[in-house]
Parts: sequence; structure tokens; C-alpha cells
Amino acid sequence: MSILEQISCSADVKKLDEHERIVLCSEIRDFLIGTISATGGHLASNLGIVELTVALHTVFDIPVDKFVWDVGHQSYVNKLLTGRRENFGSLRKFGGMSGFPKTSESDADVFNTGHSSTSISAAVGLARARDLSGGKYFVGAVFGDGALTGGMMYEAMNDAGRMKSPLILILNDNNMSISKNVGSISKYLRALRITPGYSRIKTYVEKAFDSIPVFGEAMGRIVSIIKHRLTRMILPANMFENFGFEYYGPVDGHNLSQLINVFERAKAEQKPVFIHVRTKKGKGYLPAEQHPDSFHGVGPFIRETGEMKAYARDYSAVFGDKLFGMAQENAKIVGITAAMPISTGMDRFSKYFRDRFFDVGIAEQHAVTMAAGLARGGYIPVFPVYSSFLQRAYDQLLHDVCLQKLHVVFAVDRAGIVGADGETHQGIYDIAFCSSMPYMSILSPASFTELEEMLDYAVNRHNGPITVRYPRGTEQCTAHMRHFEFGKAYVLSEGDGITIYTTGRMTATAEKVRDMLGGAAKIVSVPTVKPLDEKTILDNVSDVCCVLEDGIKSGGFGSAVAEVFAREGIASRLILFGFPDEPVVHGSIEELDRKYGLDAEGIFNVLSNTKGVNLT
Amino acid sequence: MSILEQISCSADVKKLDEHERIVLCSEIRDFLIGTISATGGHLASNLGIVELTVALHTVFDIPVDKFVWDVGHQSYVNKLLTGRRENFGSLRKFGGMSGFPKTSESDADVFNTGHSSTSISAAVGLARARDLSGGKYFVGAVFGDGALTGGMMYEAMNDAGRMKSPLILILNDNNMSISKNVGSISKYLRALRITPGYSRIKTYVEKAFDSIPVFGEAMGRIVSIIKHRLTRMILPANMFENFGFEYYGPVDGHNLSQLINVFERAKAEQKPVFIHVRTKKGKGYLPAEQHPDSFHGVGPFIRETGEMKAYARDYSAVFGDKLFGMAQENAKIVGITAAMPISTGMDRFSKYFRDRFFDVGIAEQHAVTMAAGLARGGYIPVFPVYSSFLQRAYDQLLHDVCLQKLHVVFAVDRAGIVGADGETHQGIYDIAFCSSMPYMSILSPASFTELEEMLDYAVNRHNGPITVRYPRGTEQCTAHMRHFEFGKAYVLSEGDGITIYTTGRMTATAEKVRDMLGGAAKIVSVPTVKPLDEKTILDNVSDVCCVLEDGIKSGGFGSAVAEVFAREGIASRLILFGFPDEPVVHGSIEELDRKYGLDAEGIFNVLSNTKGVNLT
Repeated sequence: MSILEQISCSADVKKLDEHERIVLCSEIRDFLIGTISATGGHLASNLGIVELTVALHTVFDIPVDKFVWDVGHQSYVNKLLTGRRENFGSLRKFGGMSGFPKTSESDADVFNTGHSSTSISAAVGLARARDLSGGKYFVGAVFGDGALTGGMMYEAMNDAGRMKSPLILILNDNNMSISKNVGSISKYLRALRITPGYSRIKTYVEKAFDSIPVFGEAMGRIVSIIKHRLTRMILPANMFENFGFEYYGPVDGHNLSQLINVFERAKAEQKPVFIHVRTKKGKGYLPAEQHPDSFHGVGPFIRETGEMKAYARDYSAVFGDKLFGMAQENAKIVGITAAMPISTGMDRFSKYFRDRFFDVGIAEQHAVTMAAGLARGGYIPVFPVYSSFLQRAYDQLLHDVCLQKLHVVFAVDRAGIVGADGETHQGIYDIAFCSSMPYMSILSPASFTELEEMLDYAVNRHNGPITVRYPRGTEQCTAHMRHFEFGKAYVLSEGDGITIYTTGRMTATAEKVRDMLGGAAKIVSVPTVKPLDEKTILDNVSDVCCVLEDGIKSGGFGSAVAEVFAREGIASRLILFGFPDEPVVHGSIEELDRKYGLDAEGIFNVLSNTKGVNLT
Repeated sequence: MSILEQISCSADVKKLDEHERIVLCSEIRDFLIGTISATGGHLASNLGIVELTVALHTVFDIPVDKFVWDVGHQSYVNKLLTGRRENFGSLRKFGGMSGFPKTSESDADVFNTGHSSTSISAAVGLARARDLSGGKYFVGAVFGDGALTGGMMYEAMNDAGRMKSPLILILNDNNMSISKNVGSISKYLRALRITPGYSRIKTYVEKAFDSIPVFGEAMGRIVSIIKHRLTRMILPANMFENFGFEYYGPVDGHNLSQLINVFERAKAEQKPVFIHVRTKKGKGYLPAEQHPDSFHGVGPFIRETGEMKAYARDYSAVFGDKLFGMAQENAKIVGITAAMPISTGMDRFSKYFRDRFFDVGIAEQHAVTMAAGLARGGYIPVFPVYSSFLQRAYDQLLHDVCLQKLHVVFAVDRAGIVGADGETHQGIYDIAFCSSMPYMSILSPASFTELEEMLDYAVNRHNGPITVRYPRGTEQCTAHMRHFEFGKAYVLSEGDGITIYTTGRMTATAEKVRDMLGGAAKIVSVPTVKPLDEKTILDNVSDVCCVLEDGIKSGGFGSAVAEVFAREGIASRLILFGFPDEPVVHGSIEELDRKYGLDAEGIFNVLSNTKGVNLT
């Protein structure tokens, strides 16, 4: 029996001796590489955090002590050590274990995460709840250096730094977010990293002052102040100390005894501490060490070589190529990314148009407003961003782009259901929240060609804010579609008795439903979701109508069609197919379509059981 | 003719001599106090920034040089100096001058603002546009220390600090946001402020090293590096230098020649600079100096005494009293504010329940996730927040509260139209964006009593995320209403031929419309907007139906009713009354209701002209 197999909680880790813990780390790495090469998942970040997590369980008592995992895709090791090892084969699969912390899965997951930079805020709330109820346990957060490019961390540090009770903040610094980390903070951390043993020097200096003999309490306080001042003269406060934290570090994140030692010291503090841990993303698996960005989130791969399955050309690639082509023709085009140059298809653009490309870090708010500034200055910013990340900049989108009617192009990638990443990453809200923003236009392609035509329109001919939302993966649509015309819907195929209004990815589903209905359905393709082509919508009403959309039902495309129907007093029934008002779980896109009744069979069943539908 | 009357651009300011500029400042103060005591507006912040703005115009050339005003309510002086003096009587009035920068008003307003902490991002975008087009002008941002509690500033600084071209960041540090500023940054700035002449010491140290003779270019580089290192040993880098900026300050913000001197030096830098200016909010008007928070945004007041008109008891006060009462009974209730303890009615709570009250600064994202942490820890957080500020935490609301179904109570103040602050502050989006969030409930009171009953339900009996949205101002509704029952709509008054579905503030309007229609309208009161009482909605359909809401039409309450109508194939026409898909301008609430057809007359006119309506 391996050591790993004997572990199901912190107490089990504590029982191990130093050597056994080292073996445990090695077994964990082996397990992760073996499992993830088969299931896919987040490999590199978890390989980097093995010792950190084992040390955490050695020193702290999880789940009595509560740690929030920022973003959360690096919490696999914590899952492994808290009774979920046997379930790992189901990772990120429909009905299986989530790839992120989930309170519903285990008490060891104290707070659900998914997006970056929320962990300190959640931990501050948990710590305050502890203090109010007189609890004595520890609360902390584990976050990467990428998270420090997100502004919310500073909001939280500004608030947390003045707390008078224990709060353990652990920076897992590998100089990466998904790709290489950017900006001043990254540079600053790099400088701190190469300052060997800041904490050690500080301790040494403080100890030296401790040799001064002290009489009485008041005298003690004064000496303590003088000591602090003198220390500061020799060793200036760093940024995290400026925020009010006791700083420990930098610590070697692959040295268990160093980690355990610093965690023990942190436990003794009655105030917030900031522990700076240096790690290597992908540690222990050569292909991942060499290409940590490629091994950030992976599908199945060949363990021996690190070779990955080649994927079919996807919408992101089509976007990237089209953008590159347009940028060659139009010097006003600038590209922006929030720490995802590669996964959004900007790789080539970023290399070829260096001065027109801006990676701002995990900072969607800044990205959007900075884009607005560029637009105000006469340029055409194109910001490819995953749908679920765009929602982090709601206010900036509304105020800085829409209210000012600035021409910024949002290439909303991973719009609609995304699959294995699950509820926090489903891109199902963008139509709803963009619909209520003034001047915003929303386009939704059903094929690669339509995406290309829409991008060309959005960038070169539109004026004002516009989103082009496209799904994860490859095109599904085989229909012969018309060329894109802004603001126009059209009849894609004629039919009688039922009208299906569709857009984007669902167009392929609409065609399947039509075929199952024996052709008795008219399909109206609506590439422009906003502004809505109300005339074409109304001209094609049948006895039964339905709307298909790859998004939340409430406030989305269907809701806009419903407004038109209700206003005109149309007596036909309108059935909305979309995602319901509940968290949409993880699984493959096919499985999720089926679960939520958005696959052709599900839609067919509802329609064929609807009063007024006569199947031929 | 006063000096002020001779100024309409930067060039006019430049012509003045030192003495005339001092007189100008005094005239500006006099003008501001005189005008704002009559019109109302943001007084204290503008009094504090007089010298800073005059110095800016002395050194820079606005609008060729482009400055973004953070939040923007402190840009009156800039307006005064750029040709808008004569228009000042119309400030914040319907059809008049905006209380915020508006590009539509003047070239001197380069970017619209309204919410805090966006200015550096916009300036970075503008500066990059300048650099790409080879422009030689200056770009900058002026922001308060309160803005530095908002995380977006750090996203922007992380990106901006690495720029290689001029960017002028000016911190107007008065140790205030609307109320006293909070947190570690505020404390840190306080420490910097009392360090006299950081910049001067640095210059002195650097000059001392300059006396070392240097031969050759390579040698020069080495000496420069050594010089930098030695300087840093004597004077450690401060936080803004860590972010990559050249730091100047602290500067006395009421000393014109000091300001002009530091701006001139900043102009010479070929990199981003951070200028730290100390000012006094309310400077020059004693009542405002003594009570800067009361004089932040004011109505008309008596100039001689600073006495303000007593306002009728408003929804914020009712909320504050109810919360206070509930907190006495229920020790689990905790209160959170994002820098607005007084204007949200939390004053008494904050003083009486010190350990259960958290002011986090202008940090809505952190506030929401911190609340989620408190809820996870077993407490009941109540977060009163203006509707338009809540939208700054869309992602946190969705992920950290709703997806996790945590019991957090959002007291959404200033929901609906807010009046004089205009387009950036209209609270018209919250129903739309909250409607599409899982598990979120939305309540909307039509009277003070209904608000109290709803708060009692939301805090003490509900489980899960919930918003109670209430308007600015006092109650309008005189109807005899039923006691609040969660999830239930009811017929408020019977009628025939027309059904008016209404909620919140619009209920009083619905009654007026009914009376104008000679009683021929049934009013259905819908205090719970989500989940919708579909049965009561459907049971009360008339030939013509309408929905009244104090919010954006698209995706709001009316849209939800439309979904029900369309799904059921109801042949009655449904007319939605709400705010349209365009920026909603400033003016009084009455004027705006009239402009957008939401007053009783406007609604009556539409209804009485609708086919199928027979007035008796």
C-alpha cells in the first residue's frame, strides 16, 4: 500500500515522518501525471503546489482550519489528501468530481472558486465570522502571482491588512498565470525572489536588537518601537508590509522542511501574515516544466512524451487568423488580452504586431476601460475574452464603452456552454447582460465563415460597442447560410406549423430538429441578436414558435423575442429553449445539452408534445 | 471684470502672473460657493482641488493635453476654466450642464467618468493611442485617495508602470473618499504625507552622488546604477515606485508655486510619474472644511451658515432604522459598506455595533465576496449599496453569492432613476442583471412599510441571496397595501379592460393612471419581482396589459412578464413602460419620468390610444 493510499485527512499527513512526506510528494506527482494524462485537467499548476499542500496539511488541520484556493484549479492535491483519491478518475466528467473546489464535495473545500483573485476577500469574511463567534481555528488563502494582477486582491489586502487576528495568506509565486505573468507586480516579485532570505535577514537583525536588556513594560514597548524602526532602516518595508502584513519569505516551495517551518512561524502570529513561496509550475514532469502554459489545462496526453492530441480547428483559431489578416490591412486595429494570448488565438498577432498588442494581466476591468481609452484616441481595440471573464467588467463595459458609444470589439470566446470547467466557466450570461447595455450590438455566428464575416463587419464597418460571441470548439453547422448582413434575420429553411428562431451554435441543432419533425419546421436564423430584426421575427410566426439559444433563458435572446410577441399580442405559443435559472454543472457539451433539454431529441420531444403541433 | 471672467482656456491661465493666479483661485472658490449654495452639487471636493486645477492649466495645455478626472465630480474647476462658467447655473439640471465630465460638453472633458477608480485605465489607453500615432501631447489622470481603495487602480498601475512614455498620474490626497478613507493604503498614505519632502530628500541625495566625476559612456551607466542603488539604501522605494513610477511628493496642494514646479518637473520625464498632492477637502469654506462628508454632494444651502434644508425622511433612513432594530434582536446580522456608511443609513449601526460593521472602502467586489465569506461562516451580512455601484461586482454577485446560494442581503439603494447625478448613477440595471442570476430573489417595495416588512423577511426568514431594491427619496404610495408575502402578487385595485402590473415606486404612478382612466384599470401589485407569481399574473390578464417599472425595459420586470405571456400564447397586448435602451440623462425624477413617458400622463396617453381600450 502506498503512503498516498493511507491518507484521507490532515491527521494522516501529520503522522508521517520527514522521509515519508517526501515519498508522499513523489507519489502524488506520479498519481497526478498518471490520472490527468488519461482524464485531462489542470496539470502544471498542481505539480507546482505538491509540497506546499502537503506542508499545509502537516502544519494545519483541514477542514477545521479553512483555506480558500484562489481560482481553484490548483486544488487537486488538496482533494487527493482529503478523501477524494478514488474518485479522481471522474475528474471534470459529467456527474463526477469538479476540477475546482466545491463545498458540496467535501468540508475541505470551504469556498467555491473558479475565477481569479477572490480568495483573500472570501478568507477575510471567513476570518471575521470566526472572530465574531470566538472560534480559534486558522483561516487563509492560497493564490498565485497571476492573481495579484487582479485588482480585487488589493481591495482585499487594503481591508485585511488592518485586521488584528490571524489570517494566513500564501503566495504561490511561479512567475506565471496561464502564460507568463506581466506587469510591474510581476517584476517586483521577481526582484523579491532573488533577494535571498528577506525573512531570515530580518529575523537576524531583530535578534541582534533582542540582546538589549529591558526593564518594565513601558520600557519594553518603547524598545519594541525603536527595534522596529532600526530594523526598517536596515531592511525597508516591502509592498506587502506596507499593506499591513507580516511578510515571510521568499521560501523554496519545493523544500518541505522550509515550508513547514515558515507555516509554523506564521501560526504563532496574532495578525495577518503574507508568505511568499517560490514554486516551479509543472515541477517534476519535464514536458510540463518546459511548457507550463501548454500544460495549464490539458486534454488527455501521452505520459511518456507529453504529446497531446491535435484538436480540430476551433473558433478561437478562426478568430486569431481573421484578426491577423485584418490587422495587416488596417493599422488602426490593436489587440488586448487579459493574460490569455494563446488560448484566445492571439499568439501570432502578439508576435507580429508587438506595439499594437497589450497583455494587461488578469485584469478584465482595466482591459475594458483601457480599450475605451484607445478607442477614444482613434484606434479600434479588439479584446478577445472568454464570456465568463467578460462579466468581471460589467460596469466598465456599461460606463466606459457603451454609455460613451465607443467602438470597441469584444470577441466573446467560449460563449455558451463550455463543458468540463463547469458552473463558474459557463459562458451563458453574456447575451443577457449585454442586451441591457445602450448601443451594444450582439452577433452570434453559426459557422466559421459567419464568424469571419461578422468580425470584418464589427472591426471595419461598425461604429460603437459590439460583441461577437462564439462557442468553444469547432463549427457544427453544415447549412448553406447567407452572407452576414448586420441587423438582418432570414429564413434558413422553409416549413410549416412550427417556427424555430435560432442563433449561433444552436443552428445546427435546429436543423436536426427540423429533420426529426419531417421538415415541418421553418428555421429563422438570427445572426444579429441585438438589434433584433423584429420584422423578420414577426413575418414568420407559426402556430407554435420556439427560440433556441446557447445561454441563460432569462433576459437572453428568447426573452427579447418574447417581448416582441407579447407587445404585438401574438396568440401563438412561444417556447424558450435555453439554460435554466440554476448553476449549470460540468460535463461534455453533449451531455449538458441532453441534461438541460437542449439537444435535438429533447427539443423534438417538447415540440411534438405541444398542443397545436401536427407531425406529418 | 474679474480674472475668472477672462478665462476660457489654458492659454488664458498661462498669461496670468503669480499674484493673479492666487486671486483667480480665490474667485473660483467664491464662485463655487455662491453657485452651489443655490444649485446644489459637489462642493467640498471641488474646493479642495482649486489650486491643483489652476496649476494644471498653467503648466499643461488642455485640451491638447488630456487629463481624465476620476469619478469626475471634482471637475467643476476644470469646467469653469474651459468656457463653461456662464452655464454653471444649469449645473445638474434637466437639459443643463452635467455634474461629471462629458465629452459631449467640451473637448476639455476627454473621457466620461462617474464611478471611482477608472481614470488610470482610460489614461493608459489614451496614452497608448498617442504613442501609436506619434503624438507629443501629455496624458494624465487626477484621482483621490479614495480611488486607491478600488482594485481597478492596481490593475492599471500594474500595466502602466512599465510604459516607456509620459503619463502623469496625480493623487489628490485629502484622506477622504466620501467619508473618511479606510484601510491600509489610507494609513500608508498618511505615513507618506508626514514624511516631509520625500522627493526633495531624494533629489538631494542624488545630487550628492552627481559630484562624482565620470569618464566615458559605459562608466556613466555603471555610475548611474550605483547611484540608484545607493539612493535606495538611504531612501527605500515607496509603493508607487515599486509599481514602476517616478514618485514626486508629497506636495502642498494649496501652494500654487509648489504645484507648478512639480508639474513642470513631471513634464520633463519620459516615463510614468506619480505625483502625490496633499489637499484639504472643503478648503476655504469653513462649514465644508469642518464637515467635508456633509458637503460632499449637497442640495442648496445657506451660504452664510452652511445650513442645509432638512429633507423628508427617505428610504435610506427607513432602511437604517429597520436594520438597527433587527440587529438588536439578531446577533448574527453584520453590516457592510463600500465607503458610504452615512448616505446608506448605516450611521447608527456603525457606531453601536462596531465589531459587526465593516467599511471596506470603494471596493464593491471585495465587499460582495467578503460578505459571501461571512455568510459561509454563519453570519447574515447586509450590504446596503447604491444600485449603480452594485453592478461593479457583477461577477462576485454571481459566483461568490448566487452560485453558492449564500444568504447575503443586498439593500439596493437608489434603485431606479436617481435624478441629478445622471447617466452614470441611474440605478436602472439591477433588476435586469439580478434576474439572470441563479437563486437570486428580488423584492421591490412601494412604501416604507413594505420596505420594513421585506427587510424583516429577507434578513430573518429568507435563505439564499436576495436583493431589496428601493428608490431614492421618500415614499409616494398612499394605497392601502397588503402585508408583504414572499413570492406573492395581488390585486391592489379591481378594474376592467386594462391590467397594470406594477412594482416599487411605480405603484403610486399606477394609481394615478387608474384614476385618469376613470377607474377602468386593474392594478396588480408585484412586490416580489423574482420569483415571479406567474399564476396571479395570468389570472388577471385583460384585453390590454402593461407593466410599469423603474428600470431598463430590456431584461427587466416587464421582460419577465412578457416571457410568461409569450409562453402561454396570450393574445392580449402587453405594453412595457420602463427606461429605454439609451443613456438616461440627468434632471429631476419628475422631469425624467416625463421625458421617458413614465409619468402618469405619458402612460395614460399611450394606454388611451391603444386599440381595444374603451374609456368610460
